[in-house]
Amino acid sequence: MLALGILGSGKGSNARSLLEAIRAGRLDARVVCVISDVAGAGILDLARTRNVPAIHVDGSPFRTKLDGAAQDHVIRLLREHGADTVVLAGFMRMIKSGLLRAFPRRILNIHPALLPAFPGLEAWTQALRAGAKVSGCTVHFVDEGMDTGPIIVQRTVPVLDDDTPESLHARIQEQEHLAYPEALALLADGRLRIEGRKVIRT
Amino acid sequence: MLALGILGSGKGSNARSLLEAIRAGRLDARVVCVISDVAGAGILDLARTRNVPAIHVDGSPFRTKLDGAAQDHVIRLLREHGADTVVLAGFMRMIKSGLLRAFPRRILNIHPALLPAFPGLEAWTQALRAGAKVSGCTVHFVDEGMDTGPIIVQRTVPVLDDDTPESLHARIQEQEHLAYPEALALLADGRLRIEGRKVIRT
Repeated sequence: MLALGILGSGKGSNARSLLEAIRAGRLDARVVCVISDVAGAGILDLARTRNVPAIHVDGSPFRTKLDGAAQDHVIRLLREHGADTVVLAGFMRMIKSGLLRAFPRRILNIHPALLPAFPGLEAWTQALRAGAKVSGCTVHFVDEGMDTGPIIVQRTVPVLDDDTPESLHARIQEQEHLAYPEALALLADGRLRIEGRKVIRT
Repeated sequence: MLALGILGSGKGSNARSLLEAIRAGRLDARVVCVISDVAGAGILDLARTRNVPAIHVDGSPFRTKLDGAAQDHVIRLLREHGADTVVLAGFMRMIKSGLLRAFPRRILNIHPALLPAFPGLEAWTQALRAGAKVSGCTVHFVDEGMDTGPIIVQRTVPVLDDDTPESLHARIQEQEHLAYPEALALLADGRLRIEGRKVIRT
């Protein structure tokens, strides 16, 4: 059974989908803590309503990465709560080498595009601007790069002519809520092997 | 009815799918000529068996682009045969400004990946090396860039753990043979409007 430590900065819709997959028996895991760099983030409220430890960690003085004392604090919290797997769920900071070394090949992220297309911020807006007719989401292991780690699962969505950033984002999020439990269930069942940049299902 | 001039360097499987879509009444077009920079290309044999003018054009001294006298020759041939639309079907040379100006917004290409991911050569091999779990094909209008023009249609395929470059390429080609007739039928029906980088269906 996986012991998930979830890091998020937003309302926590992916965390919710994981909690529901666990409750439904589709994912052999428990969520041992939810950590946010945003004090009022909805993901912390969600955790509290599910009786999951919900912790705010001040990320300053950095704005776009988790480093220094804040990183040390997060590593300590994850260990104290017994996490063996770190799930980034809308966490808006780059993960640095300290956390990567503390949880080697056990940190996952979900990205709202079919990587390697549209890495970085607002991937759905990037897809719209590029005139893509298909986009989707990617669950991947985290490495030192921005949205570059080995890919576990990808799911696609159509991009419609009348899409707004909001409508496309919502369509992608529906697939995220399927993809993340699917990827973590494969990890929980010991079915993922990383070979270079490829993730093989065993 | 579209008057298609097809340019190809290989065996012509996309040209075949277009001829079959025309014969089946799924595409309101006729193929007015097939032009190849490779004297023995299968696409020329295919054209001959269908009684379509099949013309070899020497591309030298260039190897990777269609320019200079060869470009002039191709433009003249396309015009002589009454082409109003140029279809790149496995044509292994970059299209330059002369041909683009001669057929503005009437040159289409198909690429074996979900652009903007994996532009350039052997896109299926690129997708395998990147560990992508999804790939596909893209039909797009051609502009001055390498696989950068406005996207008309994209179709997806799964990438399987045991895929070889050949098996993935074959799976993508199946979707190409659906995507290219689909995109050209939209063009034939006057249903495509280009707005910046986006292609809108009207």
